Amino acid sequence: MTASNAAPKSAAISAKKLFVPALTPFRPDLSVDGPRFLAHCRWLLDHGADGLAVFGTTSEANSLGIDEKLDLLARLIEAGIPPARVMPGTGTCAIPDTVRLTQAAASAGCAGVLMLPPFYYKGITDDGLFASFDAVIQRVGDARLRIYLYHFPQLSQVPISAAVIGRLIKAHPHTVVGLKDSSGSWENTRDLLERFPGFGVFPGSEGRLLEALRLGAPGCITATGNVNAAGIKAVLDGWQGPDAEVLQDSAGKVRALFSGLPLIPALKATMAAARGEADWRLPRPPLLPMEAADGHRLAAALARLGATLGATQGTTMADALEPI
Amino acid sequence: MTASNAAPKSAAISAKKLFVPALTPFRPDLSVDGPRFLAHCRWLLDHGADGLAVFGTTSEANSLGIDEKLDLLARLIEAGIPPARVMPGTGTCAIPDTVRLTQAAASAGCAGVLMLPPFYYKGITDDGLFASFDAVIQRVGDARLRIYLYHFPQLSQVPISAAVIGRLIKAHPHTVVGLKDSSGSWENTRDLLERFPGFGVFPGSEGRLLEALRLGAPGCITATGNVNAAGIKAVLDGWQGPDAEVLQDSAGKVRALFSGLPLIPALKATMAAARGEADWRLPRPPLLPMEAADGHRLAAALARLGATLGATQGTTMADALEPI
Repeated sequence: MTASNAAPKSAAISAKKLFVPALTPFRPDLSVDGPRFLAHCRWLLDHGADGLAVFGTTSEANSLGIDEKLDLLARLIEAGIPPARVMPGTGTCAIPDTVRLTQAAASAGCAGVLMLPPFYYKGITDDGLFASFDAVIQRVGDARLRIYLYHFPQLSQVPISAAVIGRLIKAHPHTVVGLKDSSGSWENTRDLLERFPGFGVFPGSEGRLLEALRLGAPGCITATGNVNAAGIKAVLDGWQGPDAEVLQDSAGKVRALFSGLPLIPALKATMAAARGEADWRLPRPPLLPMEAADGHRLAAALARLGATLGATQGTTMADALEPI
Repeated sequence: MTASNAAPKSAAISAKKLFVPALTPFRPDLSVDGPRFLAHCRWLLDHGADGLAVFGTTSEANSLGIDEKLDLLARLIEAGIPPARVMPGTGTCAIPDTVRLTQAAASAGCAGVLMLPPFYYKGITDDGLFASFDAVIQRVGDARLRIYLYHFPQLSQVPISAAVIGRLIKAHPHTVVGLKDSSGSWENTRDLLERFPGFGVFPGSEGRLLEALRLGAPGCITATGNVNAAGIKAVLDGWQGPDAEVLQDSAGKVRALFSGLPLIPALKATMAAARGEADWRLPRPPLLPMEAADGHRLAAALARLGATLGATQGTTMADALEPI
């Protein structure tokens, strides 16, 4: 055990954060179910999440209208969710819409924003990508703004290169403070962590979380946090302790349940089954719901691994691990 | 010459339409230059365009905020552009925003709308894509609505399959009336024209326009219409006449000037040079302007081919062809 591994657990707890890209529940008419969304956000914060990366890919943010996002964000804050625990996704294809959402987040005092690059045009140059983020930052014009770049090349088809990241950090050192790496490439995550020390590189999956934490990652922003917040938080709390590998292995087993499945429909079907709230199953088109039976199978497998999703009761992953 | 080739020219003139995806001019602060946009739209209608496919890819529609698009559309109609000659692009990633734009177009009496599929999520199923368009149509709920599907897989990364097209035509025969094929695949255009007779398949380029017209295409929606409306319209007017191949060849030569160039910056730099209006050169990030010198080179080459872009004077491509 190294010196850093022997650091007191309390320090580690405060240092490593889990942000959950909260799923967005819909009603059968496909409208956003605001009260259910709020209840889920509260539940996550009460069961392991340090913060909410609302309006992420998992939240179907790009299937929400801009007014819906502005409205939902305002309702979250009005309902008493501390803005310092909210990191909304604000990147759209168009600078004016990105500015509008980002301004709303910054002026509400949000912890930061997660910003996709504009993603309609492809084959974008580094200069063009830098100009996009730079134009947004200048137009928002708020010293409180903290941007986490959102690198998800499989969906955006617009990768954010290390060169662009470096230029943005240099131009806006107090604003461009981190990145979510959803590339699924460990090599990319490792490279960014090593290349930009102090820059907040959040892995977009808990798959190799321990390795990322050891290289300085400030935490994790992961879809499966919706169904295993406590289990992932246990890794973040215990990464320097003697059970680190066991905790990582347990979180990995939950993650593996969803491997190869369409992730958003699978998470929603799991929520529907575990909470007994059938509407949870519904995504918005172009995504389609998973069969309810598959959700029940996933919820049962999740429970067998010790992660339960009852809104008001039930053991958490961390509780289940206590006896180990 | 076949019987159909012998049809009177007047019938052909009324039958085949050029819709131009009008470029959107910006000011140096990147705001939309509304008056210049309106002037360009009017110029196009006066110089060969039958209609305006505003808010297309060439218009940088996805770099415009939803409120900007609603505002620009309202200003076009208020300024007296006949709505029957306007086919705005209204497809966004999110059903509510697509519905909002589409409702505005339908209630204004627009000729139709050009609708991208939701394009953030990838690997979308045919069922999911059908559900997306179907949900929009149901929510717009306007019998006047005419949708032209917008197939541009290189940018959207969400192709619209023949199976989905067939299902949409069957479910909404009076609403889903056509498609713009920007795939760049002649095989796809030909296949759609042969598979869906009577369905309005507009090629997204004038490159093989004559062949498409002979298979029943109702016209063309093409970016280079911004700089060669008259020349392309000449093909549409003369496709059954003795000069059809010559006209096609001439239009093809103009198109070829832009081959291999970043099309939107190149068209804008050409406009800036030909009209002596430097700001025309500016796209919005993530696109970047082309060098002014390249614009002058393109404008000169265009003039040599007989297509001039003076806002109030100058010969058009069709005029230049008269002596041939």
